Amino acid sequence: MSSSRASTWNKLGDAAYSKSEKVSADLVALTYGSFVREIIKDYEEPDQVNKELEKLGYNIGIRLIEDFLAKSGIGNCSSFEESAEIISRVAFKMFLGIRATVSNWNSEYNSCSIVFDENPLAEYVELPPEYTHSLLYSNILCGVIRGALEMVQIIVECQFVKDQLRGDDTNEIKIRFKEMLQEQVPWNDEE
Amino acid sequence: MSSSRASTWNKLGDAAYSKSEKVSADLVALTYGSFVREIIKDYEEPDQVNKELEKLGYNIGIRLIEDFLAKSGIGNCSSFEESAEIISRVAFKMFLGIRATVSNWNSEYNSCSIVFDENPLAEYVELPPEYTHSLLYSNILCGVIRGALEMVQIIVECQFVKDQLRGDDTNEIKIRFKEMLQEQVPWNDEE
Repeated sequence: MSSSRASTWNKLGDAAYSKSEKVSADLVALTYGSFVREIIKDYEEPDQVNKELEKLGYNIGIRLIEDFLAKSGIGNCSSFEESAEIISRVAFKMFLGIRATVSNWNSEYNSCSIVFDENPLAEYVELPPEYTHSLLYSNILCGVIRGALEMVQIIVECQFVKDQLRGDDTNEIKIRFKEMLQEQVPWNDEE
Repeated sequence: MSSSRASTWNKLGDAAYSKSEKVSADLVALTYGSFVREIIKDYEEPDQVNKELEKLGYNIGIRLIEDFLAKSGIGNCSSFEESAEIISRVAFKMFLGIRATVSNWNSEYNSCSIVFDENPLAEYVELPPEYTHSLLYSNILCGVIRGALEMVQIIVECQFVKDQLRGDDTNEIKIRFKEMLQEQVPWNDEE
């Protein structure tokens, strides 16, 4: 990716962030904490909790993409590679106020990682020991990314592979490209 | 209240808001929406849902007050009247990015309303008809106010009395002062 492109996206991210209505990250961190506790109360099993958080994120992502395209000034993403950069340079900045970086591309360029050191959702959080190695506290973000990309025809799988709440040095979401959907062409029974 | 005091608080609110880490209100509105749906799934009865939202807010408020006092530069509130102004001019701005106004003081000055036209939590929301007149969608805010004030020794009751989601012209939280707690003096068995 050219550095001028990266800098354009960074600027779009900053502009979209400054244009957005914003609320305090502290309030959000505490509210998200209550939210996760509620899901834990309902599902107990960490695997189930992780799935539920991802699903809720997916439902948020499919709605958030419209707002993202409208406010960021970005048209549809033309490739998976470009999408990953736009997520980290524009979307992370616009919605979470932080910039992430893309790394760990595999040789086929169909898998990469989105890496970020600050996680506004996880401020103030300390996981109880029984959840440290099983709960993906911020898994809602994986769902948001999957849902949003699906709405621009890009099917991916996302997985939290590093989490500072578990003592990792950073936060890392692995994204694997699955397929690009074809735009639905209306079927014409005259031809 | 003198207008110079009001203007000082407005400035403190602006400063605390600009100092705070912030995230997009759109993301928060959608996440809060998922959160409320989860509580509805668990408690079904609107009255129970309202109570639970208030309780969750209370737990957030008792933690948020520390952050508020540290970042706003405001010492403890000396009276209920002053507290109400500080909540609407400083805390609403700092945490939600909006300014509220205090009105409807009763003649004893122990009850007033906090009124606000924009509600970032309720963006995009349309209540299903069966909840329009029973669900207090943003009742978490009542809990936050009650919890935060309790930590500065002020006991209040809060109630959402107007909500634009119900078709009201504005949003209004009624606050009733109950009592001012005495600071706990350690008991000394020598005397």
